[in-house]
Amino acid sequence: MRLSDIGELALLEIIRKRFARKSKLRTKQKGIIVNIGDDAAVIKPRAKKLLITTDMMVERVHFDLSFTTPYQLGFKLVSVNASDIYAMGGTPHYLLLDIAMNKITEESFVNSFFDGIQDAIKLYGISLIGGDLSSSKKDMVAAASLIGYAEIPVKRSGAKPGDKIYVTGSLGDSACGLEVLKKADSCQLSAVSKKITAANYPLIAKFKKTGLTWNTIAPLLKRHLMPEARNSKNLIKYATAMIDLSDGLFIDLSRLCNESRAGARIYIEHIPVSNQAKEASSALGLDLFKLATSGGEDYELLFTAPPDYKPRAMSHELKITCIGAITKKGMVAVDKYGKESALKAEGYQHYGIQR
Amino acid sequence: MRLSDIGELALLEIIRKRFARKSKLRTKQKGIIVNIGDDAAVIKPRAKKLLITTDMMVERVHFDLSFTTPYQLGFKLVSVNASDIYAMGGTPHYLLLDIAMNKITEESFVNSFFDGIQDAIKLYGISLIGGDLSSSKKDMVAAASLIGYAEIPVKRSGAKPGDKIYVTGSLGDSACGLEVLKKADSCQLSAVSKKITAANYPLIAKFKKTGLTWNTIAPLLKRHLMPEARNSKNLIKYATAMIDLSDGLFIDLSRLCNESRAGARIYIEHIPVSNQAKEASSALGLDLFKLATSGGEDYELLFTAPPDYKPRAMSHELKITCIGAITKKGMVAVDKYGKESALKAEGYQHYGIQR
Repeated sequence: MRLSDIGELALLEIIRKRFARKSKLRTKQKGIIVNIGDDAAVIKPRAKKLLITTDMMVERVHFDLSFTTPYQLGFKLVSVNASDIYAMGGTPHYLLLDIAMNKITEESFVNSFFDGIQDAIKLYGISLIGGDLSSSKKDMVAAASLIGYAEIPVKRSGAKPGDKIYVTGSLGDSACGLEVLKKADSCQLSAVSKKITAANYPLIAKFKKTGLTWNTIAPLLKRHLMPEARNSKNLIKYATAMIDLSDGLFIDLSRLCNESRAGARIYIEHIPVSNQAKEASSALGLDLFKLATSGGEDYELLFTAPPDYKPRAMSHELKITCIGAITKKGMVAVDKYGKESALKAEGYQHYGIQR
Repeated sequence: MRLSDIGELALLEIIRKRFARKSKLRTKQKGIIVNIGDDAAVIKPRAKKLLITTDMMVERVHFDLSFTTPYQLGFKLVSVNASDIYAMGGTPHYLLLDIAMNKITEESFVNSFFDGIQDAIKLYGISLIGGDLSSSKKDMVAAASLIGYAEIPVKRSGAKPGDKIYVTGSLGDSACGLEVLKKADSCQLSAVSKKITAANYPLIAKFKKTGLTWNTIAPLLKRHLMPEARNSKNLIKYATAMIDLSDGLFIDLSRLCNESRAGARIYIEHIPVSNQAKEASSALGLDLFKLATSGGEDYELLFTAPPDYKPRAMSHELKITCIGAITKKGMVAVDKYGKESALKAEGYQHYGIQR
């Protein structure tokens, strides 16, 4: 069955049943007064300061339906927005969706997309409270707006010279995962399954030749296709400035520095990369340094903290790595021999500008 | 100059200068703590209840760039969202935009689009606080999320049997305007000017033959291309239920009745239509009844109020017309001879469902 057989009103009713009528108690606890199905949602926020962010995903720009499953797409849409809320030191709460799909879209695709959204909002403790459904003539477009709470928002502008610069997790995994997918495109690796499973791996004949195992590529694919946003809860009281890495380490660092009117010195050797990314980039002839510094969609947190901050003392499940320090001005990269060079703010920019 | 020459970062900076750095005092008064340029905006709302709505506009679905100017498009995007906030009895305050445009888009187009947004947010007293810019491979997509305040939200679900049914303004003007544009498509009537002016009228050779004057078609075009949302301020204390007319009178009325678990009796002869719509539909052979009851995008308010409500006593600049009454169940249309028939909930539905 396709959307043209279901129609907008019936689809709305399916969404409403799935998301809005699950638990009236929970709805009340969350401060939701009017849920999906009116001209606007009504909430009674439980905090004095609200965070509001929005991010969109456009087919053939942000995603390729031969690489990603609808489940992963739905999950990622929520994650990239949650990441923005965490990057402000907040907690995500209320979600609105704008979805434009071609009328020939299969019902199973739509269901799987909403499965991904549902699993993600459960993971982050978010409620879907509204949205807009549209048709599209060609590409699918999905945008989400997410509202969160923050006691003390952590801005991009608070970094001071002398602060150290930290990142969560490892960088370049997502970009590396994308390269793996590009090389496997004809096999439509992931589009066959709801989640990434080893069962799909035998399909990728190409990779058998490289000697790469499923255990190596699975975490890279997962980081690209359905990243989990990093909860900043344990960082808030230390962080002087924070940003999430969506367009690439160097470009996002330069944004934080611009807002803070400061500079940075980054020690290249300290940039954390995973063993999987090392293996895969080596086997496939990829430049891991470039992926880790200019590859987009890491969705790790970059933050600054005063020199006395001790990341080891934190009960955070994620590795936190110091990669440099905030300076008065200028952006400098230091290589393993101590050689300095100007750090170029490279990363993903829409409209494909050439410099 | 095209977007591919400007780039995302420079465009962001242009938008930020235009919208976020105008008046720091006003920003503070509006409770905006962090404006455009961080991972999320931060607001300290001035009311306990927040309204949140979102609406998207997709090229070749909601708009045709040979009919509409980018100025009108920007204006309309804000209006359709403001209309949702007013339909809840609220006041609009904070706007977020998601815009996906092809990289070959001209800078003048983008500027004009933002002129329209700027004029609209000024009209409604809204502040742009954030958004997301993306490229698109083909169609332009623009989505807006709007946050408002409401002391006592007016829902769709409050209508009681015995309440009378009212609409603001006149219905079918927008749909009539769209029909006029369709017949004039080769002339690209409006795309040549920022606003609708008589200066463009001589271009429409076709209409000279029909005898229609600029004074007749201009208000219809305006209602379709850049509608102003109707402020419900003076209705809030009377309205028991409210909805804005975006998909057509009958379909939107049926939504209100469904939510209120009630029925309606509509007097066809009482449905307000403008003299311009009468003239144009007559000259062009259009079914005005169909346009007024099932044509979309009126952006008028439909509301219900107890029998003792007197619309004449209100200081509202807009005409308010009683078109029927809420009943216990069933949807009935009554014609001028008093003949009753079942009211069909027809109107615009995405995905082009056939029934």
